[in-house]
Amino acid sequence: MKIVLLQIDKTDQAYIEQGVQEFSKRLSRYISFETVTISISKSTRSRSIAEQKQEEEKQLLTRLEKSDCVYLLDEIGKEYTSIQLAQQIQSVLNAGKKNIYFVIGGPYGFTDALRSKYPLISLSKLTFSHQMIRLFFCEQLYRAFTIIKGEKYHHS
Amino acid sequence: MKIVLLQIDKTDQAYIEQGVQEFSKRLSRYISFETVTISISKSTRSRSIAEQKQEEEKQLLTRLEKSDCVYLLDEIGKEYTSIQLAQQIQSVLNAGKKNIYFVIGGPYGFTDALRSKYPLISLSKLTFSHQMIRLFFCEQLYRAFTIIKGEKYHHS
Repeated sequence: MKIVLLQIDKTDQAYIEQGVQEFSKRLSRYISFETVTISISKSTRSRSIAEQKQEEEKQLLTRLEKSDCVYLLDEIGKEYTSIQLAQQIQSVLNAGKKNIYFVIGGPYGFTDALRSKYPLISLSKLTFSHQMIRLFFCEQLYRAFTIIKGEKYHHS
Repeated sequence: MKIVLLQIDKTDQAYIEQGVQEFSKRLSRYISFETVTISISKSTRSRSIAEQKQEEEKQLLTRLEKSDCVYLLDEIGKEYTSIQLAQQIQSVLNAGKKNIYFVIGGPYGFTDALRSKYPLISLSKLTFSHQMIRLFFCEQLYRAFTIIKGEKYHHS
């Protein structure tokens, strides 16, 4: 059983990468966690937004198996409290799924086809950059495990 | 006219400080922006949660003038989209207030007295650490100004 953060494009801000590393390290106490980054070519990035999103969709789908539990992090998704997010993760763990994927889209978000294929989780009504979301998500995932384990990090 | 991020306790994570610095620098193109940090003594930190919050309240109130426009960043507050937050800031700028304070509480949040004195803004239903919130807020404030100025950063 492992949790994968699947994302588009390398993080280009060092402080975000450092924060993600910090929470990845802390998460490894609780579960196997990894970050998988899909790189989109420069030639694709020079095409229309619709074409870029289409290419991202194609590449994301090659990574996801039918047996995986997949959530898209998308601002139009369902908002959770930290406790509810922990409960949701706990219920997937209990169901014995092999992999849980949390997917962060590219700079323009997901295609409608992906949005209707998988459940959507929103971290905030606010829009954050697709790079910043990585750090927020890793902190929440870590927080979720401290809640599941009854540890002291979260003050509700 | 300036915007102040008023916060409790120094940031102890280097990556958060670096991210805040990055957005502070970018913000300075649009407005005078500063971060003011109130330090709570170790002896106060060894007291009860209620006493710590009380002391934080006292110290915050000494910084805030009647003529300031003050918002508390608090998870029970009103949620905005990025566009709505930009509009809110624009309307305060238009009203010609001298200072806008955005206040981030300590590790246990604000006292009820503070919560009823000032309007509350929630960045997310999720709970984030009071340190992480600094970075989220700075990115949103920068995003708000790019929206106000019609610049390219925000994709809605």
